Formats: sequence, C-alpha cells, structure tokens
Amino acid sequence: MKLATYAHGAIGRLALVHLGQLHDLQALDARLPATMREFLQRWDECLPLAQAAEQLLRRTPRPGVPLTETQLLAPVNEPTSCRDAYAFRQHVATARRNRGVPMLPEFDEYPVFYFTNHRSVQGPGPVRCMPDHFQKLDFELEIAIVVCRPGRNIVAAEADEYIGGFMILNDLSARTLQLEEMLLNLGPAKGKDFCTTLGPWLVTPDELAPYRVPAKPGHTGHAYNLRMTCAVNGRQVSAGNVADMDWTFAELLERCAYGVDLHPGDVIGSGTVGTGCFLELNGTGRLQNPAYQEQWLQAGDEVSMTIEGLGTLTNTMVAEETTHSLLALKKPRPTS
Amino acid sequence: MKLATYAHGAIGRLALVHLGQLHDLQALDARLPATMREFLQRWDECLPLAQAAEQLLRRTPRPGVPLTETQLLAPVNEPTSCRDAYAFRQHVATARRNRGVPMLPEFDEYPVFYFTNHRSVQGPGPVRCMPDHFQKLDFELEIAIVVCRPGRNIVAAEADEYIGGFMILNDLSARTLQLEEMLLNLGPAKGKDFCTTLGPWLVTPDELAPYRVPAKPGHTGHAYNLRMTCAVNGRQVSAGNVADMDWTFAELLERCAYGVDLHPGDVIGSGTVGTGCFLELNGTGRLQNPAYQEQWLQAGDEVSMTIEGLGTLTNTMVAEETTHSLLALKKPRPTS
Repeated sequence: MKLATYAHGAIGRLALVHLGQLHDLQALDARLPATMREFLQRWDECLPLAQAAEQLLRRTPRPGVPLTETQLLAPVNEPTSCRDAYAFRQHVATARRNRGVPMLPEFDEYPVFYFTNHRSVQGPGPVRCMPDHFQKLDFELEIAIVVCRPGRNIVAAEADEYIGGFMILNDLSARTLQLEEMLLNLGPAKGKDFCTTLGPWLVTPDELAPYRVPAKPGHTGHAYNLRMTCAVNGRQVSAGNVADMDWTFAELLERCAYGVDLHPGDVIGSGTVGTGCFLELNGTGRLQNPAYQEQWLQAGDEVSMTIEGLGTLTNTMVAEETTHSLLALKKPRPTS
Repeated sequence: MKLATYAHGAIGRLALVHLGQLHDLQALDARLPATMREFLQRWDECLPLAQAAEQLLRRTPRPGVPLTETQLLAPVNEPTSCRDAYAFRQHVATARRNRGVPMLPEFDEYPVFYFTNHRSVQGPGPVRCMPDHFQKLDFELEIAIVVCRPGRNIVAAEADEYIGGFMILNDLSARTLQLEEMLLNLGPAKGKDFCTTLGPWLVTPDELAPYRVPAKPGHTGHAYNLRMTCAVNGRQVSAGNVADMDWTFAELLERCAYGVDLHPGDVIGSGTVGTGCFLELNGTGRLQNPAYQEQWLQAGDEVSMTIEGLGTLTNTMVAEETTHSLLALKKPRPTS
C-alpha cells in the first residue's frame, strides 16, 4: 500500500495511491483518519481498514485524482522527530579514502545516528535556500522509515514490526555551514536544519516483501534489494542499492530505542548511500584527476531521486531573495 | 512571573508560582489556557492576562497549593524541539587544556548548536537510567530559554524579543555512549537522548531585568549576572555565572533562525558552564593530581542545580531493573 499526503488546507490530507491516482482515505472509509499523524497513532486499527478499502478499489474501480493535478506534501508531514543514521559503509570508506585517512574500525562495531530538524521536513517541490546554503549546497540520497508503534528497549530481532513503511529521503546539506560546526565537534545540525525532503509517498513493508534479501552476515533484520539513483538536471550522478546498508533499520531501531521511548511518527533515515552526494563524488573526482571541477547544487537545479518500489522524489533549489548571511557575520579571532 | 507545569492528568496543567504556592492559571482567569504549549502559542494575548491575574493575587491574596504538595513537571513539558549550544568559552577551553590540545580559535568566530531529543525532556524528580548510561553518567549545568513567538531570519539585535523565559537545564550525559558516536564524528545524540531535565519553572525576562549586565565586548543581546551552582548529594561541585556566556541567547537565536522557522515551544540550552560537569572536573583533577579519582553519577545520587532568580532543579538517578546493554551488543571488528 502507498500512502500519500496531499495539499489541502493547513496540514494536508491522507490518500491512497492506486494506479497512479490519489484516493482520499477518509472518503474511502469514514472510520479512517484525515492525517498521517493520526493514522500512525492508530496504526493497528487503521491498517486493516485501509487494506480493505484498497481491495474494494481493486474490485470496484472508481476515479481518483490524477497525481499531476495535486501537490504532494511529505507523506509523514508532521514527524514527531527525525533521526539520521550512518548505515552505508561505502559512503564512509570512500569519503575517508578521498581524504587520505583510514577507515574507522568503529563503524563495524555499532551503528550511530544524530537528531536533525523534524520541523524542516517537506515533500516534493521547491526548496528555499539562503545565500549561505548555496556555499557548497549538496543532496544526500537516503531511504527512511517511519515508526508505527510506540516502543522502548526494542531488540533488533523484533524491531521490523515497528516499521510502518519506507520513503525516499533527501538530506539537503549546506557543506560550508556543516564544516564550521563539525570543526567544533558538534552536529551536523546547522548544516542540515533548513530542509529534509521525504516522498513521494509511504510504502508499507508488505509491498516490498518481493524484494526481501538476507541482511549482511552477522546482522539482524530485514534487508531489501532496491536500486537507488539520483539525477541532477536529468543527468544521473549516483547509483546504489538499499541492500548495501551494512546496519539494518532493525539494528538502528534497537539503538534508537535503548532507554528511550520511540513514538509513532518518528522518522529515521539510513544515511547516505555510497556515491550518494556531491561531497563524496567531488572527493573521488579529485583523487582520480587533480583538474576535476567540483560540483554543487545551484539555484534552479532539479534533484530527482528514485528508489525501486518507492517512486521518485523531485525537488528544485530556489534562492530566497535576501543577502542575509551568517558567514558574513563571523567575528574576528581574538589576537592572543 | 514564574510559570510552572504541575502533574494533573496526562499532560499537566499550567500554574503561576506566587509566594511559594501554585495557582492554577485557568482557575485565576478562564480565558487563560491549561497548558504551557498553548500559552506559548498565544503568548502576546496570554502574557498580559497572566500579569493582570498576578497583580490581582498580590492585592487580594488567596491560598494556593503548596509546592511540597504537588509534583512539578518540566515547565515546558511538550517542547516543539530542543537545541543545545556551546556558549561558554571556559568549558571548551578547560576541556581542551585538560586533554593537552589547544583552544579552537573557531569558537570565537561563530556559535554552534546541535539538536537533542525533545521527547525526553522531563522536570524535577527521578531520572530512569539504563546500565549503559551508568558507564560514566554525568550532569551538565546549563540555562535554557524557550521561544515565545514564531520567527525566521531573526537578527541578534531583535532576538531577545523571542525569549519567553528562562529555566535551569540539566543535560544528562552518558559519556561512554557519547564517546562512541563522536569517534564517528556524529552527535552528541545517543549519549544524551535519554533525559534532559528542565525546571523548576519558567521565569519571564521582566523578572530578571534587575540582573541585566552588558554582553561581552563585541557581542549583541541581553546578558544576566546570575550565579549558577550544582551540588551532588549535597556537596557543591560546580560554580559559574550566566554572565560568563560568551555567545548570548540573542546570537544563538540568530544562528538557529537562519533560513529556518522557529516556533513557540522551541527550547535552546546554553551549553555547559565552566566547571559544570564531571567530565571537565575529572580532567582538571587528573591534570592537578595524577592519583585523582574520577567521579561519575551513581544510582541514588541526587543532582541539585541552582541558578539565582530561577530556583533549584533537583533530580535523582534511578537504575532501571534490566541488564539490557548496547555496549554488550558491540560487534567484533572485521579482521582485514
């Protein structure tokens, strides 16, 4: 099942995506809620009702709203929190090789994550960027899950039951701001707080069952063979696979839930797939050819991410009409 | 004015603290909301009503509920987000001196922050800790503000107008988990996601006007001369002053709001005051005396933080009855 949130009033409404058309969920069954937030909170009651509504739609087709005639929001447009992890070994290994430093052996010992700005989540469409964001503006190609049941101290072997579905995640990153704060051993935070896009819709785990593959040796939880690509202005720049995740979402959930309540609506991103951002691609390019020209996102650029089974998430970078700059406000270093 | 949230039903109720007693705010004036979340959302309408209610209480005393007869929750018990900054130079400089590395000159150029788990905020009282949390469990003595007006691209010169009030913040930290993730250049996140305490109540800026002092040279915004102390099991271990903040809350707000919507209910912590955690105190102790015995928080320990004008926030560390440990789940390093 594919669940989308479409623009309607202040907070959007939930719809089933069926044969390329949207069907308002509450119009299909009045017992179903109008928003994803409520659907997630009442997951075990709502899921069977929505599945029955979809089966009825299969047997008795009725016209929906074409996707081209509406504006999609983030499927989880009011996440209760947003964590992002570091699950793809290749991304970390390549980035470190490009910088001439060895791989961190700790990567293979435990998964890590950080909290990002859950209030800056949005769906497909324009992304408003400030002048400082355009100082090395980057995309990051990721897959994300949303938690559908409350849990605490969840163990990896049971954690897949807490996953409501999967979405594409574009972790927009302003590398100059990010580098600033990471020099002080914090974050990333300011470098990634302005926009994280999710979409185009939430795909429930049952629909991805045909793509199930074993987790990597020694790991626990479901893995999926789903090709991932990213194109900038129509030119493919990244390619990977969800099955390349070294840490599974089940293992990430186990870590996130240790001594902490997880809530329906919590979003967790995978971290960047190998080749999945300009930062890594630029490093590889420079290593192979000293004359390589760095590339970063510019105003007007269109970033289009596709994950097999999940659809395509497209965003366009838009410059805010302002000269306001934090970088210009930097204070001088004290002369001591 | 002092605003507290006291335990009542699922989410608590808002009260005025007057002469050491609680007065339910909605009982004083039915036009006022029952929760801090709504008070913050309707700030400009609610503040004058609450001030009028307090003046009436001064002129016409009536009995309230003694503080000893109720359980206080975090005054902002449903924060919309929680950021923590790094505003005290002394904390950073001492920690680096103790490790034998030079001060980061970037500290003086721009302020930094990170996002922490806004769903793990709680008030005074017991703090439930897991076995891994007790591997170098620490407090951090901080002051925090809450945002009371929506804003975006706020400039420092105007940012104090977005501060609804001040609270004590104890940023509980599990140093072993924190070190793990920071080795991989992320966070802090897991090391600090289990509990952040706020309290005992929110003090509005007008009440702190007598403590106003100039910001440090070259800095913008309000500063306050408020003594800060922390005692563990009745023994004072930390002492500092809010006026020691090198970056003002106005400057922190400017950075947080750059290209980002801030919302009423967003909490921002100052970062740790100098001497304000065992990590720093242990480092200083070892530097002065190689035989120094490290100290960390143990089950049963009581941490009591006092900031002049803001009151005292007391928490007791409680061990969860479990042996569940992430540290025990660490995977072996690959033999390559």
